[in-house]
Parts: sequence; structure tokens; C-alpha cells
Amino acid sequence: MAKIGVILSGCGVFDGSEVRESVLALLALSELGQTVVFLAPNMPQHHTINHQNSQEATLVRNVMEESARIARGPVLSLLDANPNDYDAIILPGGFGAAKNLSSFAFLGPKAELQTDLKRFLKGFYQLKNSKGAHRPIGAICIAPAILALLHRDITCVAAPRLTIGDDRDTAQVLEGLGCNHIPCKVDEICVDEINGFVTTPAYMYGSAPLHEISRGIHKLVSRVVDLI
Amino acid sequence: MAKIGVILSGCGVFDGSEVRESVLALLALSELGQTVVFLAPNMPQHHTINHQNSQEATLVRNVMEESARIARGPVLSLLDANPNDYDAIILPGGFGAAKNLSSFAFLGPKAELQTDLKRFLKGFYQLKNSKGAHRPIGAICIAPAILALLHRDITCVAAPRLTIGDDRDTAQVLEGLGCNHIPCKVDEICVDEINGFVTTPAYMYGSAPLHEISRGIHKLVSRVVDLI
Repeated sequence: MAKIGVILSGCGVFDGSEVRESVLALLALSELGQTVVFLAPNMPQHHTINHQNSQEATLVRNVMEESARIARGPVLSLLDANPNDYDAIILPGGFGAAKNLSSFAFLGPKAELQTDLKRFLKGFYQLKNSKGAHRPIGAICIAPAILALLHRDITCVAAPRLTIGDDRDTAQVLEGLGCNHIPCKVDEICVDEINGFVTTPAYMYGSAPLHEISRGIHKLVSRVVDLI
Repeated sequence: MAKIGVILSGCGVFDGSEVRESVLALLALSELGQTVVFLAPNMPQHHTINHQNSQEATLVRNVMEESARIARGPVLSLLDANPNDYDAIILPGGFGAAKNLSSFAFLGPKAELQTDLKRFLKGFYQLKNSKGAHRPIGAICIAPAILALLHRDITCVAAPRLTIGDDRDTAQVLEGLGCNHIPCKVDEICVDEINGFVTTPAYMYGSAPLHEISRGIHKLVSRVVDLI
């Protein structure tokens, strides 16, 4: 049975992992009988947003502690995670991917990946599966931006093919980072077999019905598991 | 199209709504094309639990503000909610149902329902659908305890039939409150057509696979929609 690392960034769309995308990924992983390990950086969130009124709160929360709300218990710090322990990685979306796991929300193409995540993903990308292919990474919603920043930092073996839906502004930033952006509908996926990257737009379509988002995430997880 | 009130109690299994149960209920409601309104009491949580280490945190959070993380935006205060606006109600589980929406976790059969919830549910139970039946309420995991406390307070037209799975201790408390407890597996539901109550155990089976929990919640939501 494969072991899948699910990398969380908090608990809530505006300052952490998108709750629904995370749960729908877990649902698909459960249906496919996969073992999940939850990972997150042990660090303060960039900020805390009151989701009732969209205002910034005074007190800052910890990314790993908030991620544990989705995990229903302890999350492993990315600092202590060995890339070789995982057959595949899933990155749910939410602003946490662009505020905590990277600074993409603020600096766009000049953003940095969070230090522990950068070390982990650099190590993971070097690994191969039993067929000699890159081990798969599934990235949901805005999380493909993390793969684009990884490509900028390490130069993948080929220009990554990925999708963030039909958001032209964000797509142009990803293309500026050397990626090929493929427009996708909410229930579609983009597969880059060379790099092992699978992406789906999910809540990049903010008004999409949840069951359509679920279809895209289910396809993503299924393809990631196929690529193990 | 029917309007369904989903009553949340925070965001996290140990001090609020169980995140996954809430999302899986939303997924089923989306598949069935229902309109959702999120409701929660505007009050401090009983306490805040650090889900990473299970310790109680110093600072207390607000139930409505944390519920907004699952809602992806503003939640309506139960104080301002009119029962007549809703065709059905769904109550996800999580300790929030037993710590914030009621004091069941601490006082068992002597627990009180939260004031705004009590007014709302008392009003809702008096309403009938177009077929003259009670409007349906779906309660997940430990949330059936709320229905048992409602029965103690208002005396339903018949002793409620409900399930919290196979937890004998909790079942005895519910029976002490005048309910008939029906043991159910994780993917089963208990239907009380007289009172309009539909229940499923979900994470009362703490080690159940998520896709089996999802099957129970999908059955519950489908039956609730049928009873509208």
C-alpha cells in the first residue's frame, strides 16, 4: 500500500488550506485505499483572517496546529519529514499555499518557497518510482504555483505543464516562470507525465458547485495514484 | 429548490464542528442541488483545543467566526434566523455539538441546549411540510444528542428513534432521555419518519475509513431531502 504525504498550510481558505479541497482529496484517497501522512511547516501563519468579516486578526496562529484540525490529530513537521518515505504528494489549495507555503500571494514570480517545503520538494523531485519515473505530485487550486516556483529554483527536466483553470493573470505569472499553462474546466485535470505533476483548478472557480470540484479532485487523486 | 440550514459549531473535531462530516454533508447537498445557508450561535466557544497536542489553549475563539472557515464566508447568527425560512436542517457532529451547541459533553442528561439553538429548533419542530409531516432534521455523529435534549425539553409527538452507532454508554444516556436508540453501522442511517429525524454515526466510529463515513452521510442527506 502506498504512502501519500498530504501537505497542509492551515485550516481555512483565506489563511490556510482550503478545508473542502483538503477533505475531498482525503475522501478520494480513502476510496482508493491509500495511507495518508499529514505534513505542514511548524511556523506562524503569515496572518490570521477572520472568515466571518474578512478582517485580519491581531493574533497569529501556527500552521501545523491549525492543519491538525483537518488531520484530526498530530501533523508531522516538514522539518522532520524524509522525502523518501512518500510514494506521492498532494498539495491542497487555499491561500495558505500562497501565504504560508510560499509568498506567491504577495510577491508573485519573485516569491520564495517556505524553507522546509523547498528542501522537502527538492528532495522528492529527485526520487523515482519503480518504473523510473518521477514520483507524482498532485496540486490543487492555487497550489500549482508552488510547482512553478520549484521549477524556477531547480529547473525541472522539462517545462512543467499545469493548470490553474482559466485565470489569465495568474496563468501569465506561471508562464513567466517557465511553465506551460493549460486552461482546464473545474472538473478537469492537467497531467504532466514527464515531471509527475497533476493539477486541477478546484476553487480557482470560486462559484463552482462542490460536486463538480469534487470530480476534478477525484480525477487528480486517481491519476496521482496511477503514477505511483 | 429547497433551502437547507446547516448548523455549525466551530471548525475542528475537538472544539467545533467535525470538519470532514461538515464537508461531506455539503458535498451530498451539492450533488442533490440544494441551497445551503450556514447558521451558528454568535458566542465564545466553550474552549479552544490545540488539535496538534490536545491541550487547551488560553484564548477562546468565537463559534460563528470559526464556522465561517467551513462556510468560506459569513455565517448567519442563530439569533437572527427564522425557522420558517428552512425546509430542512442538518447538524454535523464534532465536540462542538456537545460543548457549544449544548453542554452534553459535560452534563450528559442534565445538559442544556444553547439558548439560540433551543429557540430555533423548538420553532422548527412546530413547522410542517406540504404533506403535513414534520420538516426533516438530519443529525450526524454526536449531534443526535441535541435531538434527545430537544425531546426532553418539548416532548416530541413520539419517542425519537435515533442512532449514535454502537456506543452503549452514550446510547443509554439517550434512552434515559426518552429516546429509542437503534444501533447502526457507520454507513447506515436511522430514520424516524414521525418526528422527521434522520441520524448516522459517522465519526462515532473514530477509526472508520472516510469513504464509509461518506456513504452514511450521503444516505442521511438523501433521506432528509426526500422528507422535505
